[in-house]
Amino acid sequence: MFNQDFMKLSDIGEFKLIQRFAPLFHAHFPSGVEGIGDDCAVIPFQNELSYLVTTDLLNENTHFIKDKIEPLDLGYKSLAVNLSDIAAMGGKPLYAFLSLGLPPDIELTWMDEFFAGFRKMAEETGVLLLGGDTTRSEHILINVLLVGTIETALIKRRSAAQSGDFICCTHFLGDSAAGLKILLDDMPRGPAEDKLIQAHIRPHAQLEEGKWLSHQEGVHAMMDISDGIASDLHRLLESSQCGARVEIERLPLSPELLEVCLEHHWKPETFALSGGEDYALLVTVAPDQFSDIQQAFCERFQRPLFQIGKMTGSQALEYILNGQNYLPEKGGFDHFNSL
Amino acid sequence: MFNQDFMKLSDIGEFKLIQRFAPLFHAHFPSGVEGIGDDCAVIPFQNELSYLVTTDLLNENTHFIKDKIEPLDLGYKSLAVNLSDIAAMGGKPLYAFLSLGLPPDIELTWMDEFFAGFRKMAEETGVLLLGGDTTRSEHILINVLLVGTIETALIKRRSAAQSGDFICCTHFLGDSAAGLKILLDDMPRGPAEDKLIQAHIRPHAQLEEGKWLSHQEGVHAMMDISDGIASDLHRLLESSQCGARVEIERLPLSPELLEVCLEHHWKPETFALSGGEDYALLVTVAPDQFSDIQQAFCERFQRPLFQIGKMTGSQALEYILNGQNYLPEKGGFDHFNSL
Repeated sequence: MFNQDFMKLSDIGEFKLIQRFAPLFHAHFPSGVEGIGDDCAVIPFQNELSYLVTTDLLNENTHFIKDKIEPLDLGYKSLAVNLSDIAAMGGKPLYAFLSLGLPPDIELTWMDEFFAGFRKMAEETGVLLLGGDTTRSEHILINVLLVGTIETALIKRRSAAQSGDFICCTHFLGDSAAGLKILLDDMPRGPAEDKLIQAHIRPHAQLEEGKWLSHQEGVHAMMDISDGIASDLHRLLESSQCGARVEIERLPLSPELLEVCLEHHWKPETFALSGGEDYALLVTVAPDQFSDIQQAFCERFQRPLFQIGKMTGSQALEYILNGQNYLPEKGGFDHFNSL
Repeated sequence: MFNQDFMKLSDIGEFKLIQRFAPLFHAHFPSGVEGIGDDCAVIPFQNELSYLVTTDLLNENTHFIKDKIEPLDLGYKSLAVNLSDIAAMGGKPLYAFLSLGLPPDIELTWMDEFFAGFRKMAEETGVLLLGGDTTRSEHILINVLLVGTIETALIKRRSAAQSGDFICCTHFLGDSAAGLKILLDDMPRGPAEDKLIQAHIRPHAQLEEGKWLSHQEGVHAMMDISDGIASDLHRLLESSQCGARVEIERLPLSPELLEVCLEHHWKPETFALSGGEDYALLVTVAPDQFSDIQQAFCERFQRPLFQIGKMTGSQALEYILNGQNYLPEKGGFDHFNSL
């Protein structure tokens, strides 16, 4: 079928792999069923209601390093990253399935802590664990599948952005990536560093924000920012067949990120654009409704909905800094090309 | 919580791990929702209809060896093992989610073949792939989650066996384990060996049998045989709070298994009891309805429903050979103690 006998997966990368095989599975779906291509799959189940389904595979040494994260935090985080996908479609999480690959010599106390963290996150968000699988493995593997529910009419898709929309995000960007760097480099820590590390190991899925935004007619597209805005926005553009102009000065940066970047001569915009694991929501908003939505969001969540750019008709993703075109340092995270 | 600071996972094994953590997650489920404890979780979704959900994690070097199985067969099998769980509750499979961990240097031709096999099995059984995740990994990991549907009233559970029931299975036992041994030992192959290998690499989920059996009132309990009948029947007994007596002479053995075992002086009953991966269905049948069900099954599937023993009130699992108690050579497969 493909005349590329000696090509390796690393030659094409993760997103091209998904592009390569997704068409093989585009069958005739029953009415209302949606598959690959958004944060969640959609399965209608009753009049006006749908299930949302998402899954994430976390792999030791790719997504986490055992010595660098407490098992309690890892349990918490492994559910949180899936909650973020449900949030990104506006849904309410319901049921989880957990598959674990575990080395036989793993300590039971480690397992106890991992499950305590998973359970804490599940209880906080009303999620019930309904099943899973365990198996022997050389390294730790964690696959979580999460089912949520939503009124079908309220689902926000990444394909719904329109030229002219304001591009907004619901939270600071870059904290998680900076926290990871501090962890990996074993850097000295003050309160600012601790805050960034916390953003990395205890990400907060924006479930309330996602639900609220799903009720706003003026919100067109929505997705979560898991691989870095450069990469995620690029996928939103592909889905919506639009372009975008992002103003670097408008990227929402936390005081802690600015403080730590100043101290170490790091560029905060690099973390914000390409860092990943922020789990903020990226939304596009009709320009004539932005002001009302912005004000109502502020009142509801006590912080701004950050406008970072505008959708364009150009099919290109441009970055502007000081009125000039800006070239980001690195693309989004790709599991098969990076590390 | 547990005063076992230095214990490792291998000290307790897979089933005790699940027992250890399952109670942590036994929350108050909504009406009709069933979690850990059977082949599938159950989620009611409409009047009289439920979704069935099952998941299996296949791990290179634990569940398969890359050089010993063609990627086409592996793709086929990774879906088939989940289909078997849906079959075991009597359901019809609908939607799959596939998470893959892949080494960056894996050949694209290998991936093409894997997906071709997965797709073939999906098309044969009407399954739609709705989503998944991919990530970098040192070894190949395959997590499939499968959603099926069934009329809620027809669900057969492993907890429903009654003392006095006849224990039956729907297919030969031991072929897959013998096929695996032939593969791993690189043994010479004739037609009988090929048939056993085929049973291992191309297991057939008994979807039609499961559906048919779910409609029989006289069928009480049902589960699939994935880890070997010794281990799986033990779990059925625990769920049903019964005992069982299995007659070794009655284990259904294929002519090919008998031929190969005779040649190599292997004990066929060891493969049949402890081998695993047969994916036949294990059912218990009310004794007064057995004869009718047996005859109708024969007419429908052109082979017998094999009766291998009887449920007892003793809480023990006994094996009888030539009228004497028989001690099997090895327990079922446990991912953390064996290999």
